[in-house]
Amino acid sequence: MKKVVVIGGGTGTFATLSGLKKFPVDLTAVVTVADDGGSTGRLRDQFGILPPGDFRMALVALSSEDDDQQVLRQLFLYRFSQGEEGLRGHNFGNLFLAALTDILGTEEKALAYASKILRIKGRVLPVTTNPVTLVAQYENGEILKGEHDIDEPPPSHDYNQKIKDLWVEPDLVCSPMVTDALLDADLVVLGPGDLYTSILANVVVRGVSTALQKTRGKIAYVVNLMTKFGQTNDFSASDHVLELRKYLGKLPDLVLVDNTKYPTKILDLYKEENNQPVLDDLKESGDYLVVREHLSSDLIFAKSKGDALKRSLIRHDPDKLAWELMKYIKPF
Amino acid sequence: MKKVVVIGGGTGTFATLSGLKKFPVDLTAVVTVADDGGSTGRLRDQFGILPPGDFRMALVALSSEDDDQQVLRQLFLYRFSQGEEGLRGHNFGNLFLAALTDILGTEEKALAYASKILRIKGRVLPVTTNPVTLVAQYENGEILKGEHDIDEPPPSHDYNQKIKDLWVEPDLVCSPMVTDALLDADLVVLGPGDLYTSILANVVVRGVSTALQKTRGKIAYVVNLMTKFGQTNDFSASDHVLELRKYLGKLPDLVLVDNTKYPTKILDLYKEENNQPVLDDLKESGDYLVVREHLSSDLIFAKSKGDALKRSLIRHDPDKLAWELMKYIKPF
Repeated sequence: MKKVVVIGGGTGTFATLSGLKKFPVDLTAVVTVADDGGSTGRLRDQFGILPPGDFRMALVALSSEDDDQQVLRQLFLYRFSQGEEGLRGHNFGNLFLAALTDILGTEEKALAYASKILRIKGRVLPVTTNPVTLVAQYENGEILKGEHDIDEPPPSHDYNQKIKDLWVEPDLVCSPMVTDALLDADLVVLGPGDLYTSILANVVVRGVSTALQKTRGKIAYVVNLMTKFGQTNDFSASDHVLELRKYLGKLPDLVLVDNTKYPTKILDLYKEENNQPVLDDLKESGDYLVVREHLSSDLIFAKSKGDALKRSLIRHDPDKLAWELMKYIKPF
Repeated sequence: MKKVVVIGGGTGTFATLSGLKKFPVDLTAVVTVADDGGSTGRLRDQFGILPPGDFRMALVALSSEDDDQQVLRQLFLYRFSQGEEGLRGHNFGNLFLAALTDILGTEEKALAYASKILRIKGRVLPVTTNPVTLVAQYENGEILKGEHDIDEPPPSHDYNQKIKDLWVEPDLVCSPMVTDALLDADLVVLGPGDLYTSILANVVVRGVSTALQKTRGKIAYVVNLMTKFGQTNDFSASDHVLELRKYLGKLPDLVLVDNTKYPTKILDLYKEENNQPVLDDLKESGDYLVVREHLSSDLIFAKSKGDALKRSLIRHDPDKLAWELMKYIKPF
């Protein structure tokens, strides 16, 4: 069975993993442990554990979708919206993993147990076995520490500054299981997801780019659908790819780019937050293969007729994404 | 298979259920929904749900103890001792049931799902489908509202006052499933457990005593090992039985009373809190059968040699208790 490793965290990786798990491949999710916001950040600080948010999402993405597992999946995604301040906002799956870690002694055992009861396909590997802090330096010299602050900078920050350098503190080496998985992969998929806070947050961990340079496997990069203000303002597809190369030390073998035309009504909503579709300026130079397809979810078109438009409706379609990746590696 | 219903809540019922589940009987636990203290009380108030504490304990008592279920059992008993104030003190099992109730829509469905994943033997029935408040009136006319306050009265309360009357508000009728279970039982076991806040808290719910008067089954009462200051000060075994008769409207068929001699060292610890072993003054009058046995856990003797003495070490032994009940109903 072909071995596929997906690197990331958050909702982008959720789509990739949800799609790929339906195919006969040996799946590994490598996820960031730099999250320090929300429920995850609170548990990281107060329990001194690996931030559970990203591996929780990967667990749910890879979990069985059989009827008898649906409630457990919902529980792992459930967020307490009632109760005292200290409970409100917490994700149930995060609390589950925090309690499990306390009972079983290590995050590794907690992850193994949760993987079993969620009946996941494949496995989830945190990129390091201890939490790290993501640090970004901007063109003007400013430094922001913490994934949450880089993702949503404080009001004092100049949102037009580009990120000049990115690293993690402490300078931990990635988990040996991650190195092995990357070296042994047939395909490594980066993204989709926030370029700096989800994808590069893994790539900058010592050992990851080295393994990705050495691996016998192919590297696929899924370009985001939309730019993200404060991180990738006005980034074209090639800007994304070049920024990836800067930290990866090489170009990907495959670049997947969406060619969907979105309704103006939806794009106007994104424009309000200074975001727009990523411009496809990729050239067929022979450096990498470009696949241009309609990769986004059709749900948007169904919803765009109603009133309840939401920015987050422009998303990758897990099945379309997985299908392009499968055609590329040809599992049979 | 003989049908056994256990009525109560808390750790006493936990022992009875844990012991009985090992025998080939059809088990039902009927538990109070009057709890308003601690984690349970907070969730009851803030989520507007049935207080989960007592049915959570019954679920764990009846759950499978196979190796692969041990972690889940531990999770359901786990209490958050870290984290923010609003999380700290919460029991994980209670949060699990609160989230499930929100996802599935009703406590009944949440209970059914939890019963399935905990692989429980038998079933757990909350005595009513809506929460109730337990109310106690004392000899001096004072009224305390709420199971928690009756269990641990405020400092202003005179701990030597006896409870003259006990009822629940609102005056709800017990769930029809409870009535059916009681009418159809071969044996109904009351206790062990706090007389007023665990056992009678169920008996005073409209419909329960009527069903217990009508049932074709036998009624067994397990007398507590120790008195409880503020509730059953100086109560002898016959005081317990007569108080039970007052609310039940009839005498039990079987009374189980412990005849263990405890080390002075342990009893001194109880004495500090104004508690002592319940005096066995029961007469063989023919009104009910009295079984006098060593029913308490031997763990106390093992521990009484060390320094770490704890009041709560005097407990019923689940296996000894269940064995006496089984000999009485003769399952085969």
